[in-house]
Parts: sequence; C-alpha cells; structure tokens
Amino acid sequence: MPVALLTDFGTRDPYVAAMKGVLAARTATPLFDLTHDIEPFDVFGAAWFLNTIVQCWPAGTIFVCVVDPGVGSARRIIAMELGGRVFLAPDNGLLTFVWNAGAALYSVENEALFLPQGSTTFHGRDRFAPVAAALANGLPIAEVGPPIDELVMLDYEPPTYGETLVRGTVVAIDRFGNVITDIEAARVPFALRLETNYADAPAGSFLIVGSTGHIEMSMKNGSAAAELGMTRLRRVELAPL
Amino acid sequence: MPVALLTDFGTRDPYVAAMKGVLAARTATPLFDLTHDIEPFDVFGAAWFLNTIVQCWPAGTIFVCVVDPGVGSARRIIAMELGGRVFLAPDNGLLTFVWNAGAALYSVENEALFLPQGSTTFHGRDRFAPVAAALANGLPIAEVGPPIDELVMLDYEPPTYGETLVRGTVVAIDRFGNVITDIEAARVPFALRLETNYADAPAGSFLIVGSTGHIEMSMKNGSAAAELGMTRLRRVELAPL
Amino acid sequence: MPVALLTDFGTRDPYVAAMKGVLAARTATPLFDLTHDIEPFDVFGAAWFLNTIVQCWPAGTIFVCVVDPGVGSARRIIAMELGGRVFLAPDNGLLTFVWNAGAALYSVENEALFLPQGSTTFHGRDRFAPVAAALANGLPIAEVGPPIDELVMLDYEPPTYGETLVRGTVVAIDRFGNVITDIEAARVPFALRLETNYADAPAGSFLIVGSTGHIEMSMKNGSAAAELGMTRLRRVELAPL
Repeated sequence: MPVALLTDFGTRDPYVAAMKGVLAARTATPLFDLTHDIEPFDVFGAAWFLNTIVQCWPAGTIFVCVVDPGVGSARRIIAMELGGRVFLAPDNGLLTFVWNAGAALYSVENEALFLPQGSTTFHGRDRFAPVAAALANGLPIAEVGPPIDELVMLDYEPPTYGETLVRGTVVAIDRFGNVITDIEAARVPFALRLETNYADAPAGSFLIVGSTGHIEMSMKNGSAAAELGMTRLRRVELAPL
Repeated sequence: MPVALLTDFGTRDPYVAAMKGVLAARTATPLFDLTHDIEPFDVFGAAWFLNTIVQCWPAGTIFVCVVDPGVGSARRIIAMELGGRVFLAPDNGLLTFVWNAGAALYSVENEALFLPQGSTTFHGRDRFAPVAAALANGLPIAEVGPPIDELVMLDYEPPTYGETLVRGTVVAIDRFGNVITDIEAARVPFALRLETNYADAPAGSFLIVGSTGHIEMSMKNGSAAAELGMTRLRRVELAPL
Repeated sequence: MPVALLTDFGTRDPYVAAMKGVLAARTATPLFDLTHDIEPFDVFGAAWFLNTIVQCWPAGTIFVCVVDPGVGSARRIIAMELGGRVFLAPDNGLLTFVWNAGAALYSVENEALFLPQGSTTFHGRDRFAPVAAALANGLPIAEVGPPIDELVMLDYEPPTYGETLVRGTVVAIDRFGNVITDIEAARVPFALRLETNYADAPAGSFLIVGSTGHIEMSMKNGSAAAELGMTRLRRVELAPL
C-alpha cells in the first residue's frame, strides 16, 4: 500500500518535509515522491500528470495530491476510490482526468483524523497526510467522511475525431520540449506521417505517438515547443496528408 | 527510526547519491529526503527549515544535516539528542533553533565509525552517513565521541513583543512568495487584521498566521515578497491598527 | 537489494513517477533516487556521475540508468554484472567509466519481461523498470537476454602522468562551482600546492584533492568555474611549481 505524493510545493521549502514527517510518524508504509514540481497553483498540470501515471501504480496505492490554492476556504477535500486505488485531493478539478462513473467519492470531514490545532493554510500537513496514513494503516475509506455525488471538474474540451479533421489540445510541454496533445493516436481515422523514435527521425519537427498513446510533436535533439511556438492549452488540428 | 537528510548539495551532483549509498550499504532503516535545495552555504536557511519541520517527525528520527562550508577545518561535528530525536550537524549554528537546554551534546570524533581513507572535503559521505547508519542500527549516541557543553549559535535577535510595538525578522521567503517572519501570532498583544486563508483574501498583500503559527505576509495569486520588496533577514515591525 | 535510479528525466514531468509505479507494482525492494537532473541527453555526465558513486553502494544494488537519446532505435539495452552490482543502461557509453574486463555483459532482449503494449519512446517505463523489478525479485541476470562481448564506449582520452607534465580533462562542474578533473592526485609524480579544505584556503582559486581523489579547482565562497572560465571537457595541464 504505497503512499505517493504529488504537490506544487517544490523541494526548497519545508512543506514536503513536514508532510513526510507526519506520514513517517504514523505509518511504516513506503512513501514515494511523484513530483513536487507542479507549477504553483497549476491544477490542470497536476491533473494531467496524475492521469499519465495512474495506471502504472498498483491497486492499493494512495495518491496524495496537494495543489490547493483554495486551502482553508470552503472547498472540500475529496477521497476517491477507483479500481482499488485511493486518491486524496482538493475538490478543484485535480481528479478530472482520473475520475470515472465507477468511482466512490467521499468528503473528508472526520476531524478526529486531522492533526489537532491544525492551520488554515497547510492542509497537506494537517489533513491530507494524517488521513493518508490512517488509510494506509487500514482505515475504511467510508470513515473519512460522508459519501458525495459529484466533484468539481476542470473546464476541458475533449478531442473530436472527425473523418477529415481531428481537433485536440496541447496538454503538456515536457523538459525535452516535446509537445504533448490529448489526441489518442488509435482514434485518428486517417493516416498520419508518424516517426517511431527520436534517433531515426529526420531533422526538424515531426509527429510521434508518445508513451501514453497520444500524438506528440517532437524534434530530434531540440525543443519542438520552441521551434513551433507551442504552449499548453493551445488547440491543435490534424488533417489527412 | 527513519533517517532524514537535509543538505545544500542539490540533486544534479553526485553528493547525495554517495551519502545514500553509504547509508544503504550499512542500514535497512527507511531514508527520507527533507531537502537538498538549501542555498549553497546557507546555514541560516537550513536552521530555520529544520525548526519548521522537526515537530512533525517522530521520536527516533535521525536528522542528518550537512550545510558545511567549514568541512575539513577545525569545526566539530555535533551529535545532539533531544526529545528522542537525534541530530547530526556541523558545529556552525545549524542547530540554533532546535536546540534547548534539555539537549545532550556530543562531539563526533570516534574515527572507528568513519569511512576509512575518508576525504577532507566530503564529511557528508565519510562521517555523517556512516555515523547516522550506526546510530540507526542501535549505537548509543554517547559512543560517537565526548560529551560537550555548548555549540555554536547563529547571531540572531529574537522578536520582541511590546504593548504597542512588535519587532521581528523575515526568516524565509517561500516559492509562493510568502514572507515568513519569526513573530509568533499568539504572542502579539494587540489586534491585527488577519486573513484566514488565501482564497477568500482581498486583492493585494495581507497578513496571515502561517502553518507554524508565525505571522506571514501573503498575496493572493502573487508574490508578497516581490510586491513588498521583502528579503530574508529584513527587520519588520507590527503596530496596533 | 536496493534499486537506484539515474535519469535525465527531471522531476517536473511524469516519467520518473511512471517508472516508480512500475517498480512499486512489481517489487517491495527499496527504491532510491540517485539523480534525475542529468542534463537532457548528457550521456557523459551520467557516466561520470555513476563512476563517482558506484563504490558507495553495496553489492546487490541494481542501478537503473536511463539517459537514452536513442530510445526505440536499434541501440541495445545492456545488463552488466560487476562486483555483485547490476547495471541496466542503454548501450551508448553510459557504462564507460564503471566497466572493466571482469564485467559480465548481456543484451536485454527477453520480451517476456517487458510491459505488454510498450511504447517506442519510453523504455525506462516499459523495459528498464520491469526488468529491474524482476532482477530485484531474484531473476538470474542471464535470463534477460544473450551474453555479449562488448559495449559502446565514450570517446574519452584518459589522463597522462608525465614526469614534468600531467594532462587531463575537466569532467564535471558542480553546483558550488568546483572544477573537477579526471586527474588522480595520487598518480601525479611531482609536488603540487594543494589546500586541504575550503575554510582555511586563501582568497582566489586553488587546487584541492576532491572527495574521489581527483584534482579539483575550487574557490572559497565562490565559483572557480566562473572565475577561471572553465567548462566541462576542457583539457587541463599540471606542471611542477
């Protein structure tokens, strides 16, 4: 039952170290860093990141996701169970891409699980971490709080796969400059010129099926994002050759 | 008995990986990264970081703190036991904020614990790591070296809480631009206008009680530090409204 | 049997988190981050990093090294066993400095070990991680694929130790600005003016024996690299005083 942390806290400030301490004090379960380098307040970035890696992790994993500009306000904390995995996240859209109709949802409100004398500005330490530890130690998820019916979703337009036009969105730019779209290669109904790896690709930018099955724009030994002037959330279109 | 690492080594160089190898070769105790992103040689930053998170960690934790511009010189290595926690740090002020009169102090001098053929420039690998592993494996702390009476403290002026004037110091600026002071909110003897969270705060900068109970200056979706031109170690004053 | 990860993936993208998930799903062995901050595609940097830390890690360690511009092309994946340690790396020179004639080499080709439906762009997740997990769980290394006789080596000129002239190469610049050469101090046949630590050194740049026994150029509280205009792979010469 690994606990996996995803935050926008960075690693130079003491916030992650505080959360790890609360966890280490309460559970012997192994702890993993997914990332702490989500851009501050970038809920969309966190949501897509989580979507990209969730299937790699085993049933039983507890994902603790804290990108939380609304901390201390009326926004809820969600506990979601889906496919044997558990997700803790603020109710701000972070679970948009991993949620589906089979998910069980709860509002985390059981104050007996929180740190006593908690703050209004750091629920990662005061609520997420002790609740995650309790779940890792076997607490049934239904005890975190009442079941709920819905959660906040990001405003997001899914791709469309027309016979002669596919429309999608740039959902990430990685450190190599790869431009990652939400277009699933297997659903594009016409032929595309696709490279199969970076090393054998021609000079200049090219299309490739990325590691999650989505269409990416890449450039050998260079940044396709810089070359093409692409930024996240740009709409993109694919048409037959 | 977790071992928790705090350094200014960064993660792009092999120094942390060397320390982890020495630890992994000697002990099966779980190993945690607190941070490796303390600014190079920033003893004050490391000292305040440690102070911020120490209470989150359980008794038995061994904190290995290596921000050590004096490595290889006559400066001592300190082992401190306090409240069931153990701290290893160079004697340069790093323990200023976590020390109190109940602490037991030792000078780490038992060469039998060090790596043979160690260097003069990397005691993190050659001394801190093997001593931490030995302690994690049950070595009594008194065997690291002779007890000592005092340690180097940072030159630091604690806040003053006057009836009509509170004076303190900016002790950290975090990645969100929050300006963190050493003023304990509970000890301010007059009323302050305080927000309770970021989301509901008005535009512009505001005061808030941070997650360790200290007064912070924040700005919603922006950097209070940039807005106010605040830098670390600046003196600040609070007066009644 | 720790698994230790060395990549150029950075930590802001989901690649490391995907690899960790595949590992956590398959093995309970402890997982360590060596670094993910190798510069993108910097095989030499990864090779020297690995060389610097390998001796700190115990027999049984499985090093998973993914700096892999040739991913998906005809380049092989190497499994190397040497001194009880196991290394997985693309066949691109990454093992140049840790290889010696006593090593057993294999080409990782056993597709039964790979993730089904793997990608052509992310062998770290699809091949390296599941193979490492299998090895950590006790798979004999000979089952990863056929034994091979040689591997790709970096074009690298080792230092020469003449009676009156020693020639070497700058192999790394660290975050402190230390200029690290491949010249082994113990093999220099003439006297050098060497400092023994940073704190007691004079102003300006100086020579010192670094923590791996190589000659370094350093500067107290400053960057020797900036001061001396040194960059990696520059050739350097030492002559008697």
